[in-house]
Amino acid sequence: MAEQPKLAKADNVSEWYLSVVQRAELADYAPVKGCMVIRPNGYAIWENIQRAFDPRIKASGAQAAYFPLFIPQSFFAREKEFAAGFSPECAVVTHGGGEQLEEPLYVRPTSETIMYHMFAKWVQSWRDLPLKVNQWCNVVRWERRTFPFLRTLEFLWQEGHTAHATKAECEEEVLRAVRAYEDFFLNDLALPVRIGRKSDGEKFAGAVYTLACEALMPDGKALQSATSHMLGQNFSRESAFNIAFQDQAKTTQYAWQTSWGMSTRVVGGLIMVHGDDQGLILPPRIAPIQAVIVPIWKNPEEQAKVLEAVERIRRRFDEAGVRVHADLREQYNPGWKFNEWELRGVPVRVEVGPKDVAKGQAVLARRDVRAKEFLPEDGLVARAKALLDEIQKALFQRALDYRESHTYEAKTLVEFADIVENRRGFIHAAWCGKRECEVRVKEETKATTRCIPLDDAGGHAACFVCGEPSTCRPVWARAY
Amino acid sequence: MAEQPKLAKADNVSEWYLSVVQRAELADYAPVKGCMVIRPNGYAIWENIQRAFDPRIKASGAQAAYFPLFIPQSFFAREKEFAAGFSPECAVVTHGGGEQLEEPLYVRPTSETIMYHMFAKWVQSWRDLPLKVNQWCNVVRWERRTFPFLRTLEFLWQEGHTAHATKAECEEEVLRAVRAYEDFFLNDLALPVRIGRKSDGEKFAGAVYTLACEALMPDGKALQSATSHMLGQNFSRESAFNIAFQDQAKTTQYAWQTSWGMSTRVVGGLIMVHGDDQGLILPPRIAPIQAVIVPIWKNPEEQAKVLEAVERIRRRFDEAGVRVHADLREQYNPGWKFNEWELRGVPVRVEVGPKDVAKGQAVLARRDVRAKEFLPEDGLVARAKALLDEIQKALFQRALDYRESHTYEAKTLVEFADIVENRRGFIHAAWCGKRECEVRVKEETKATTRCIPLDDAGGHAACFVCGEPSTCRPVWARAY
Repeated sequence: MAEQPKLAKADNVSEWYLSVVQRAELADYAPVKGCMVIRPNGYAIWENIQRAFDPRIKASGAQAAYFPLFIPQSFFAREKEFAAGFSPECAVVTHGGGEQLEEPLYVRPTSETIMYHMFAKWVQSWRDLPLKVNQWCNVVRWERRTFPFLRTLEFLWQEGHTAHATKAECEEEVLRAVRAYEDFFLNDLALPVRIGRKSDGEKFAGAVYTLACEALMPDGKALQSATSHMLGQNFSRESAFNIAFQDQAKTTQYAWQTSWGMSTRVVGGLIMVHGDDQGLILPPRIAPIQAVIVPIWKNPEEQAKVLEAVERIRRRFDEAGVRVHADLREQYNPGWKFNEWELRGVPVRVEVGPKDVAKGQAVLARRDVRAKEFLPEDGLVARAKALLDEIQKALFQRALDYRESHTYEAKTLVEFADIVENRRGFIHAAWCGKRECEVRVKEETKATTRCIPLDDAGGHAACFVCGEPSTCRPVWARAY
Repeated sequence: MAEQPKLAKADNVSEWYLSVVQRAELADYAPVKGCMVIRPNGYAIWENIQRAFDPRIKASGAQAAYFPLFIPQSFFAREKEFAAGFSPECAVVTHGGGEQLEEPLYVRPTSETIMYHMFAKWVQSWRDLPLKVNQWCNVVRWERRTFPFLRTLEFLWQEGHTAHATKAECEEEVLRAVRAYEDFFLNDLALPVRIGRKSDGEKFAGAVYTLACEALMPDGKALQSATSHMLGQNFSRESAFNIAFQDQAKTTQYAWQTSWGMSTRVVGGLIMVHGDDQGLILPPRIAPIQAVIVPIWKNPEEQAKVLEAVERIRRRFDEAGVRVHADLREQYNPGWKFNEWELRGVPVRVEVGPKDVAKGQAVLARRDVRAKEFLPEDGLVARAKALLDEIQKALFQRALDYRESHTYEAKTLVEFADIVENRRGFIHAAWCGKRECEVRVKEETKATTRCIPLDDAGGHAACFVCGEPSTCRPVWARAY
């Protein structure tokens, strides 16, 4: 635990965040600017996210696979919008094995091109569809402004890629994927998200349209937390990757495609939304350690009795399926340990001292509201499990309340600019749908459309920018 | 299932191997020469290897983490032998974000340098030791001759890196790691391996010494399947990465280090050692699917009865913890399915036809020796589980028998060269320990020392190359 000063979250969210990332040893700065080292405390969170989400990916029928890191530069040119969007962000390998390469290689910023080159080989007939694969891997995008977890030059993610015989099946998959992310964010990460469709200006380069989950951060900025792209036949058409197949009537068709992804940036979202002045607060479902047991004793006689009880309690938690850790280190006192485990965000702490042992009880402390209860040892596990559920729900509710109280409506650009600057949060504002109005808003306020809610049926007031009839009412915000 | 011709393993191991990799859809060639796509059937094997081995890594006290892909070129120069060994093999990023970089970046061929740069920041006191981390990631080495799984430009692996306060603790860790690999190879992968110490000419660039697991492939070549390096203070010394700490007496010391790794090449080892003319044979402990159920029926009436029994049996297998799959596809007949699942190496097949249903029985077929048994449905799961154990043991025994019958002794270089060329396998031959004799053997026979068994106490005949007194008796072979 580094000895940086403790910072108040409300004073400066960014500084507080950077301090928590360092003090809780979640990540560290790497020698290459914009890269980060994910330290064990941070990586354990990502591992739990993988462990919780991967079975859902597999249940959707997507199979795990691995495609190469290096992509020939020429592949990018096959889909023009994709090339325009991603080529400038790529890291380029020009030499290998001591020699200059004939064709430079891009380090994957995302794997559409390399995957679809292979899909074209594998898909011949309608029988080969749907083809659904997913990979967990690293990707590189040469970002100018970086921030640990939220935006780094290299990051870890999963990317699912599917090919279907029909447009209807493809659209069903796009929606399924974004709903799967939404469910995961709400239930496992306790992160309320708004889902909706991206504007044409904000969609994925190469997509027909993009659906996204947007979370609200405590500084009022939106965090795009997962995306699901309807790629149509943009990549499968003959002039791109030529993923052609014979349908049941023996006619040549081009596959309909989707891609969807979620990255290590959600770890940043978790830290930001749930943490407090003491440090991290982890939702129990995703916490690497759900309960930590801290023994309290002053002399060897007390120590023996306390440690016996601690081991008994630890075993009971473990047998009940709670991820438990007993902190038996002798070089630190209980107060120091309390601080450390609070900083690291462990949802529940069990304290066992000599008086507790004598009374056959223990103390149960919850991290989120810092309250304590005394409980007989026999009822401890059951109460702790119930408490973990309560904490999970409470964290979600707190985040939801925050979002609700920081969601505004704006009818004019003046009103909009004032909210962005002074109240911060999500803004509902009707829009004509024209790119020029969106650009103007961004230039004047740095806010953009985050998503157009899926149930938006139109019929709103005039566009808050140009006053012409609106086509939709997006959620707007500044974004990470 | 691609329609390549079936090849006999004994005729040409390499061609047979490449054919199985393609036909069983384990991997495919990527557009960048030397890279491969790991397809779902192949990746599922790697996932199971990770699932089985990762808990052992964690139990050893190593924590999961993630370090950057890109390493500043200058880092390599800090350890001269390491730089000489790895720099020529690196892929080099020279441009990022549309601009030429000030300092080129190496794509990690292994992560000693980047990790130890961070270790130096994190380690200050003896209290910070031991420091043990592991990462599962991709690495790149610009190989000239590549072969799917066994040697590819990019591959996946785990790399464990540890730092210790004392040399004794460090050496204990080096040995622990290689023993952990050995145990995993023997028990989970059914691969008999010889463990021992590498000669100075064959050790890891930058290591004091290297311990390795060597498996014998069916063409008589050795496959280095995992390595554990004693790095001493080569990377921690002040002129390298300066991982200095204060010991309990407040004296400055440099950490003692190890690194150890295992890669996707073991998937290649599995294919080669266990497979036969029908295709892959997977050891049950690592097989993604342990039992496949194939229904047999001719008309809708039979189909209904058979499928009911299949689902009942599938559920029983599943409840018993067997990884089971029921192949209900209607576009393929049972014979086609038998072939496909044999090709894919599923250890046990269950056949259920209308006559079986009438008799309350099913057929159990084992993949390794292609034998069948008829069993009452009630006893099916218990017998299948026992059979999976038998197959696991039988595969190991077959591989061990092969190795024993292909392990030779040589007293002269003429004899040695004849064995290498005509009998192929592991050769025990006493050696003076001098690099020049090892080089001569390699030039004349393409064989090298694979490892010096850990229990080699000396006292052998004269060096088979120069006739001078020997210092040890290594295992020699040609190697992948």
